[in-house]
Amino acid sequence: MTGPGASAFNEVVALAARRGFFWPSSRDLYSDAPAGFWVYGPLGLRVKNKIIDMWRRRILAREGAQEIETPSVLPLKVFEASGHLEHFFDRLVECGRCHSRLRADKLLEEATGSQISLEGLSDEELHDLLVGRGVRCPVCGASEWTGIRRFNLMFTLAVGAEAESPNAALRPETTQGSVVEFKRTFTVSRGKLPFVMAQVGRVYRNEISPRRALLRMREFQQLEVHVFFDPEDTSAYESKLAEFSGYRLRFLRGEDRETGEITEMTVEEALSSGYTVNPLITYWLALYQRFFEELGFPRDRLRYRELLEGEKAHYALVHWDLEVYTEDLGWVELVNNAYRTDYDLSGHSRVSGVDLSVDTPRGKVLPHLYEPSIGIDRVILHLLLLSYRRDERRVWLALPRELAPYDVAVFPLVKKDGLPERAVEVARRLSREFAVFYDDKGSIGKRYRRMDEVGTPACVTVDHRTLEDSTVTIRDRDTMEQVRVPEERLADSLRRFLSGADLREA
Amino acid sequence: MTGPGASAFNEVVALAARRGFFWPSSRDLYSDAPAGFWVYGPLGLRVKNKIIDMWRRRILAREGAQEIETPSVLPLKVFEASGHLEHFFDRLVECGRCHSRLRADKLLEEATGSQISLEGLSDEELHDLLVGRGVRCPVCGASEWTGIRRFNLMFTLAVGAEAESPNAALRPETTQGSVVEFKRTFTVSRGKLPFVMAQVGRVYRNEISPRRALLRMREFQQLEVHVFFDPEDTSAYESKLAEFSGYRLRFLRGEDRETGEITEMTVEEALSSGYTVNPLITYWLALYQRFFEELGFPRDRLRYRELLEGEKAHYALVHWDLEVYTEDLGWVELVNNAYRTDYDLSGHSRVSGVDLSVDTPRGKVLPHLYEPSIGIDRVILHLLLLSYRRDERRVWLALPRELAPYDVAVFPLVKKDGLPERAVEVARRLSREFAVFYDDKGSIGKRYRRMDEVGTPACVTVDHRTLEDSTVTIRDRDTMEQVRVPEERLADSLRRFLSGADLREA
Repeated sequence: MTGPGASAFNEVVALAARRGFFWPSSRDLYSDAPAGFWVYGPLGLRVKNKIIDMWRRRILAREGAQEIETPSVLPLKVFEASGHLEHFFDRLVECGRCHSRLRADKLLEEATGSQISLEGLSDEELHDLLVGRGVRCPVCGASEWTGIRRFNLMFTLAVGAEAESPNAALRPETTQGSVVEFKRTFTVSRGKLPFVMAQVGRVYRNEISPRRALLRMREFQQLEVHVFFDPEDTSAYESKLAEFSGYRLRFLRGEDRETGEITEMTVEEALSSGYTVNPLITYWLALYQRFFEELGFPRDRLRYRELLEGEKAHYALVHWDLEVYTEDLGWVELVNNAYRTDYDLSGHSRVSGVDLSVDTPRGKVLPHLYEPSIGIDRVILHLLLLSYRRDERRVWLALPRELAPYDVAVFPLVKKDGLPERAVEVARRLSREFAVFYDDKGSIGKRYRRMDEVGTPACVTVDHRTLEDSTVTIRDRDTMEQVRVPEERLADSLRRFLSGADLREA
Repeated sequence: MTGPGASAFNEVVALAARRGFFWPSSRDLYSDAPAGFWVYGPLGLRVKNKIIDMWRRRILAREGAQEIETPSVLPLKVFEASGHLEHFFDRLVECGRCHSRLRADKLLEEATGSQISLEGLSDEELHDLLVGRGVRCPVCGASEWTGIRRFNLMFTLAVGAEAESPNAALRPETTQGSVVEFKRTFTVSRGKLPFVMAQVGRVYRNEISPRRALLRMREFQQLEVHVFFDPEDTSAYESKLAEFSGYRLRFLRGEDRETGEITEMTVEEALSSGYTVNPLITYWLALYQRFFEELGFPRDRLRYRELLEGEKAHYALVHWDLEVYTEDLGWVELVNNAYRTDYDLSGHSRVSGVDLSVDTPRGKVLPHLYEPSIGIDRVILHLLLLSYRRDERRVWLALPRELAPYDVAVFPLVKKDGLPERAVEVARRLSREFAVFYDDKGSIGKRYRRMDEVGTPACVTVDHRTLEDSTVTIRDRDTMEQVRVPEERLADSLRRFLSGADLREA
């Protein structure tokens, strides 16, 4: 049997394309379509919308976040102020023989096998290292390298008929929209600090090497929270933190990078040791770790990795990646958690000349920004990887019940004797409350397998006995166990089962 | 009093910006930010999400649509196949003196005051008309015009480090994504014709003259349904059409363009006269007209405008715009309803070499496509325009109750005597079921006005009598009438009121 996280990547990606979770955009017709763009099929979109809905209920609603939606096209000046024009690049070298353009840092990392930080090196030092170590082109084998070129990862656009050169760009993060619209949103909401904003939206990065399905994409989707606060006064979060009293955060601290040792700290320990800077950040770290546990990620596969100087984004003072571990992909970042200080607001204030400070009890304050940013595509890929099961009889997705694309399937045992009509009626009634899939094609065994493969937690079957005593069977996806319940209790049983009860107790 | 649709445009746009429905992107900081990009604030986003949710429930769920999500960046080949590279342009002239670039057709229309169809004219004919009629530059007054230039409205992109020129574009419609992914979606869904797909997504057009707030934007959002069907067999829709028996469709037929006379036809008349081509299209026209009535658009302000040769999109055989009338903006298209035949699938088949026909009872068929496409931003703008009311005492938005940003506001009459604590408790209980706004700042009159202005249907007030007998008042936004109800019946009353009951009966 294939357990959670065992080497399943290729099988999961194939299943996703075969059953309609996700697949590469346009490739069925145009095999040369650029990589890094993916389609969500009907099932994948259902999972995605469920996660967004859960995030809105469990994070935004409880934190009183003001969700807004800014355009994905923003003026270049925004990215001048944010530093993305200057800092958001990869360093490319071109092979002198085959003219492949490749990331210099990745070439060196692969050649040396080390994850040493290269971001502190100048372009010249990086080039000298490539040449000095005799790194070869992975395409043609030559070792002739041109000088380093800085390749900005933003897609730029010329907006308007009179634009002769780019005057706008597709955003590489939703953050800048929230920062630029912070003051108006604060005003229209009659806000006070700390003030929580949020955005769901697509972002764009011209990645050199998109790869691993939904892992590194050129167009992807973020769920971002933007917490604006007074760094001198985070006391509002002291009492909120009480909810997490004793809750253990899992860190890979900077000094433990070599050993990989994870340090567990209660929120109290993290805060009193000064490791998590202030109660606000401590609270949000706890809230997000718990949210991912609620999404079905085992806590021993989660950790906050502290980023080091040279690794952190250009805007970050403190920066943790919430990572998840799978046997296939190793530790992968799901949430970028950055304490951006007043970097963004002061940048925009400087470039625009507009005062972005707000009134507080202690006078005018230019707020600081803390931002947890979820890459939802990666979350979905990992949910499927961790849910994938296979034994000699079948393949199934042990998805958390509340995240499955369908709640329940309804089948007539056979396609005759009035069973389909009765099953359609059962499906119709259930569909008022549940996401129902009706199927009467093929053998009952095949129908169960099809639902197992897409993670449907429960299958309800109408058989000949149903016509006699109005009972139906419910089958549990994970155990394949079946129980028989009266039709009039079916909805209640399903509700309890989908909320986590055992089938026999549901 | 300002009634529905009276000249209110500027006031509505100002209210939207002041209260957080929508406002121009980036302009608060960067006054030269390109026009045509808008932000949804917290309140506007709530309205938008409610409309999307209603569309999913009342259209997609009932029609069994397979909703997918394709990227907004697609390979250029897709737009070669779709005809957008060749046909999706405006014709520009440049003023010889001030070098403004302007739409030739709009210049001529404004100069002649006529809406004559210019799309049939060649570039030369258009240029000769401009010169012949002595049309002057609206910017500098000169009448020296350069030759016509075709300006493609798509934003193109160079994806990847090795791309030397654009190889992709931002989609100008979500349609092409559904067409390119039709066959896989059909297969993974084990589909049969007619097969209904859907997408919600942002689209991009480099408009020459974005204007009128959410009316003509450069980045906007579509809710699209894509119905793939066998043109020889639309019988599945004959029985579905029975639901609309006697339902009257409102058309501005092509031959009545001059008089503006609207023709009402029952669905039976539209179909039997051959005007609506087939039962499938007739059904969808009825479904969408009714959906817009359900959204609160008065039926006498709605019409399907038949587009003429030269006006229709390059892909359309038959094409109706579902339009709404306001005194401010006249008749405006909200939904583009196009019978695209097999134009798209055959184009992609030709360019890709892939057979896109599917199996049907009568053999292989290349499906036809019918597409109703909602521009949701315009819908929201018109909902606000039509809801805007003003009299000598107040401004209010008479939004349909189920589309208002908040369902209910809860106030303590005064901020003392234990009333805030009791009101917070009422708000907390209601928030399990309703979107609740709590407010205790300023006079009770001001708080009512603030909620009127954003269209909150009901305000609940906790006063001193509440402490004695556990009753509260509910106030109706539209009539300002108040009734007193026991706290334990409050949720029931609100539920009935929000479903449309009169306050006294709720």
